[in-house]
Formats: sequence, structure tokens, C-alpha cells
Amino acid sequence: MKFRDDLPTPALLLDLDAFESNVATMAAHLRVRGKAFRPHGKTHKCPEVARALITAGAVGCCAARLAEAEVFADHGIPGLLITTAVIGRDKIARAVALAKRAPDTMFCVDDEANVRELNAAAQAAGVRVLVAIDLYFGRTGVLPGTPALALARVIATLKHLTLVGLQSYDGDAAHTTPFDARKLRTDGSMAQAIETKALIERDGIACPMITGGSTGTYRFDSENPGMTELQPGSFVFMDIDYGRIGGPDGPEYRDFKNALTVVTTVVSRPPGFAIVDGGYKAFSTDRPFTPRPVDLPGVAYGWAGDEHGRLNLADSPRDLKVGDRLEFIPPHCDPTVNLYDAIYALRGDHVEAVWPIAARGKSQ
Amino acid sequence: MKFRDDLPTPALLLDLDAFESNVATMAAHLRVRGKAFRPHGKTHKCPEVARALITAGAVGCCAARLAEAEVFADHGIPGLLITTAVIGRDKIARAVALAKRAPDTMFCVDDEANVRELNAAAQAAGVRVLVAIDLYFGRTGVLPGTPALALARVIATLKHLTLVGLQSYDGDAAHTTPFDARKLRTDGSMAQAIETKALIERDGIACPMITGGSTGTYRFDSENPGMTELQPGSFVFMDIDYGRIGGPDGPEYRDFKNALTVVTTVVSRPPGFAIVDGGYKAFSTDRPFTPRPVDLPGVAYGWAGDEHGRLNLADSPRDLKVGDRLEFIPPHCDPTVNLYDAIYALRGDHVEAVWPIAARGKSQ
Repeated sequence: MKFRDDLPTPALLLDLDAFESNVATMAAHLRVRGKAFRPHGKTHKCPEVARALITAGAVGCCAARLAEAEVFADHGIPGLLITTAVIGRDKIARAVALAKRAPDTMFCVDDEANVRELNAAAQAAGVRVLVAIDLYFGRTGVLPGTPALALARVIATLKHLTLVGLQSYDGDAAHTTPFDARKLRTDGSMAQAIETKALIERDGIACPMITGGSTGTYRFDSENPGMTELQPGSFVFMDIDYGRIGGPDGPEYRDFKNALTVVTTVVSRPPGFAIVDGGYKAFSTDRPFTPRPVDLPGVAYGWAGDEHGRLNLADSPRDLKVGDRLEFIPPHCDPTVNLYDAIYALRGDHVEAVWPIAARGKSQ
Repeated sequence: MKFRDDLPTPALLLDLDAFESNVATMAAHLRVRGKAFRPHGKTHKCPEVARALITAGAVGCCAARLAEAEVFADHGIPGLLITTAVIGRDKIARAVALAKRAPDTMFCVDDEANVRELNAAAQAAGVRVLVAIDLYFGRTGVLPGTPALALARVIATLKHLTLVGLQSYDGDAAHTTPFDARKLRTDGSMAQAIETKALIERDGIACPMITGGSTGTYRFDSENPGMTELQPGSFVFMDIDYGRIGGPDGPEYRDFKNALTVVTTVVSRPPGFAIVDGGYKAFSTDRPFTPRPVDLPGVAYGWAGDEHGRLNLADSPRDLKVGDRLEFIPPHCDPTVNLYDAIYALRGDHVEAVWPIAARGKSQ
């Protein structure tokens, strides 16, 4: 499997030139502005991608889940930050074991009982925690202000935990459109995080970090003097969803290149249509739009079940036959990557490497 | 991990009593009616499930893709039938290799050029093929009647291929509602398959099998004297989607039990809501409805991103706290199973076995 056209389909392809450009763009942007760069590994779940980011200047790697972080640790990725609270006796025991072998690991917390259990399990090892604050989204985290202060005070009393800062992710800001509204949204959210940090520090509790931000908000968060580090994820790959959030110059978001595609084969050719071998098991389906063919303007992909997609060729610029290969930009990169065991890293049409998605499915 | 509550979440659980009941129900139904039973492995992708079905009387196992079939063959599962055409030089070479080591394997075809390539590659080994006919769905297969006959005639001239019958799957029939409309739909589709078989046989070409059918249509297809075998898949697990297709006694389809659930943990508890650790990476999202909590009537699950789901507790019969575990029926079983590496097989609350989903992601 030396070349693009040798790969069995469906397969996940990474254009290395575009990927390296995306990584360099983000790393340089944050370096110039003095922000730490801890990109989110939930997007790629791939130790080789994490390593490329660290080579470019990242201080570590976020993980959505403990099992994901364990995989990154197994591959020697430093500076782990787990953005979902670790709940329950067994997971807490695993978290403490991870903190022992990778002492710079950070864990998010938003619940007093959980914090106390984590402390009890931590013993002498010590565990570094971030208070996760809930920025409008009503998902995870404690409310900013006094509820966050209250949890910080509990942590300050606990011998085996160290508060290192605030996890400040605003899930809605990332995809707020247009560009100006996005700035207002993230600036407003981050102001609450910054005020909360000041409140905690005025209480005499050290709270050095504010970490958060996304591919959609990095331009604004990186100009915010209160933010200490950013944790964008999708910029390494991009997807249709992020392409639509709008940039300073119009409705297309052009800061990063589409580096990730899924390649399929035409497996059947009923009159007027081409059927490709990629359906619900080849693309995530959580967005209202469908995969976009890379090189076939005017042709729409339609879902055709678990295993197939259907292209209406009425307005196709060229005919298609059984055996033709077609690439698509996925609607949403993270859950699409989570369907595959490997990324084929291409330099032009040459397969330069096969990168295992080692944390695929590691949601536990 | 001996018990249900020890399993790290999110995890895929199988209630063995319900599963065994589903398997026994389908196997007995088809045995009494003299139909061969070749259940579809694309649902479970799990050699242990395939083996349980064979123990119950199945003659083999369908696979949606070549790579899936290769995994089943690696695990000694006989009677493989691959329901998507095998396209391109490399896959054809793999198909021939599979046919050599598992000579009872059958492959679906719908394209003359592909049939000729398959013949050229097959050489002395010989390959058994089914003509796939397109039953309204406009997806894969040739049209019934003379187009299918034309392809059968080509196959009859080719030395290394043997026509074994017709692949007759009507993708729309499976979920046609209500019950009576479903009968009309599948009977109409299968009548076309049966006429096509007669047409081919009148031409002097042997065409012994008609295989097709689904969890939704098995009652009708099994009464159809022209059908020789059925290939239902989802009945082993069931899901919300199949529960809604309607039965003879009303809008609920009760022939099979919900055997498959995803267990999650409450990881955050903002006012009025419980956040669980299962989102787009824990459930497939290809249906318009959301996962259904098993034991929490009146409470709706809402998507909250890749990693989380949100339960509105306004009408909850009980309070929930961080650490509580909640199980959900998935909207659609096949692509949900494809997200996990293993099935935890439970007898009551005891983990009786951990079954690797060995063909997970094997779509190539």
C-alpha cells in the first residue's frame, strides 16, 4: 500500500502538507502571543498526531476521557489534561495510577463528593486538578463565581490535591456565527472565567491557569490577556462544520485547510446514481449536512444506509463508473475519526505513514 | 469486572437471556418453515454471536464487507455470504484467497465488468456468486427481470464462476409500517425475485437460491414458498428503530426483546439536568430519535456533543446524582455496535463473558 489508490476503501486519509500547515499556523499564532498550547486529543486519538503537535511546540495533550489519556501516556505523550471528570471508585483508582506514572497530568472536577474521593485515593501521590466551570452550556462544570470559589476552597483544604487552575471551555462559542458574534460570545465567557480566577486568588488560593478555547475561538482567546493556554482540537484536520462558522472575510472559515478525507469506491452504478462504499459506518452522522465530495462540484452525497452512500449524477461534471474512487470531506471530524483504526498519512499520493488511532473507542 | 456495576462506562451490554430468546425464536420460526437461516453479521461483527447463531441452526453468516468476512473466516465461521460487491483488483484478489480457504463463501455481483474480473482472478479455485437484484431501493443490484437474466447469462459463460442464486434484499421493506403494508411491500419485492429466478431457470441456467429478508419482514418472507433462505440481522439485539415498525397487534414490534444497552455514568449534575458520559461516540446518531433510558420513564435523552448526553429531570420519577449509572436502548443497533471493541455478555448482573467485536471497523 504505497500509494493513495492502493488503499482499501473506505479509509481515512490525511494530507500531510495541509496537516503540517495547520499545525504550524496554530503553533506560531499562540507562540507569538505567549499562550501555552495544549491541543485536544479527542479529535485525533492518535499518538503520532500528538507527537507532531509537541514537536511544533505544544506543552501536552488534552484527552476527553481517562482511557484516552492512558493510551497517550502509554505512548509517552506528556502534559495530559483530562477534560471530563473521573467518576467512581475504579476510575479514580486508575486516575491516581496515571498521576503516579505521569505526574504532570491534570484532572477536571466539578463536584465536591468526587473531589473528596479523589483526595482520599490520591494519598501521597498527589493529584493536580482544575475546577471546570460551566460557561452557559449547562453541561459540565460548576457555575463561575462563588460556586467555583466554594469548590476551590474545598480543594484547598485537601492535602493530596493541588488546584492548578480553571478549565474554561465554552462549547457553544466554538461554532457561534458570524465571526463578530463569536468574539462577543467567547470574550464574555472568558471574562467570567477570569473574574472567577481573581475571586479565588483574592481568597488566598493559588489558581494559575485558565485553559480553554477551540478552533473557532482561538483568534480571540489568544488575544485575551487572562487566558494562559488554549486547547483547540479540530484545526489539525478541519471538517465541513468548522468550514461554515465564518471568518473575518466572509462565511467561509479559511484559517485552516481541509486535511482529512474519507476515500470510497463506487461499488454500484444504477441509472443516474453512483453508490459508494461509505455510509453510517464510514462517516459520523451527527450533523445535519452530508459528506462533501472533494472533486465533484454540484454533486450531493445522500445517506444510503450503514454501508453505502448515493450520489445523484444529474449535475455531475463527469461520469462515474464502478471502481472509481471518490474522496469526501467529513461533516464532523472527531466522531468520524473515532470510526477508524488508522490514519493513512499521505505526501501527495504517496503513503508516507500509517498512524494507528490508538485511542479509538477509548471512551471509558 | 465480574458484575454489571463494575464495568467502566460507556460500555455495550448484552442481556444473554433476551439474546438467547431472540435467537431461539428466529431459529425455530425458520426451522418450522423449512427456510435456511443465514443471519447478517453486519449487525454484530462478533464471532461469538455468529457461533451462537450457528449452534442454534444457522447455516452460516452474512457479512456486509470483505474485511468483515475475512474476520469471520479467521474465527472459523462457515457459510459466509458477502452482500456488497467486491470491487477492484486488490479486493478481488483477497476475495479469491478467501474463496480458496473457505470454499462455501458466496459473493454478490451486479456489474458485468466486475464479474469478468472476478472470473479472471478466480482461476481454478472457482468462486460462487449471487446476482444481486435491486428491489426498488436504487442502491445496489441489477434490475430484476431481463437485466438480471443478462448478467446470469454472462456468469454462465464464465468457467471459474458458479451462479448459486439471487441476493434479494429490499432495504425499504424492513422498516415499512404498519405491519400489513410491510407484508405487501416485501411480498411484491420477493415476487420480482422469484419471477427473475424462474426466468433464469427457463433459460437453462441453474439458480437455486433466493436469499434476503430482514428482522422486519421475516414473518412474511418465511411464508413465501419461493424464498430459500433468510438473512435477518437486528433481531439478535433489537433497537428503538425496529421497536417502532409495528406488529400484528399494534404499533410496537414485540417479536424480539431489547437485548442490547449502553451503560453510562452521570458525570455532572447541573440544576435540573443530569449529564451522562455517552454522546456521539457512544451511540450512533443516524436516526431522528435519541437513546431511550431503560429505567427512567418520562425522561428524554438529548445529545450534548461527542462525549456527553443530557437528561432533563423535570419529569423524572427519581433524583439522580453524580456516579449513578444509567442504561439506554440505542436508536440503531448496527452502527452503535460498530463504535465498541467488546460486548459485555451479562447473565442477570453477572458478566458471563466479554466478546470482542472482532470485525468492528472492518468495512474494507
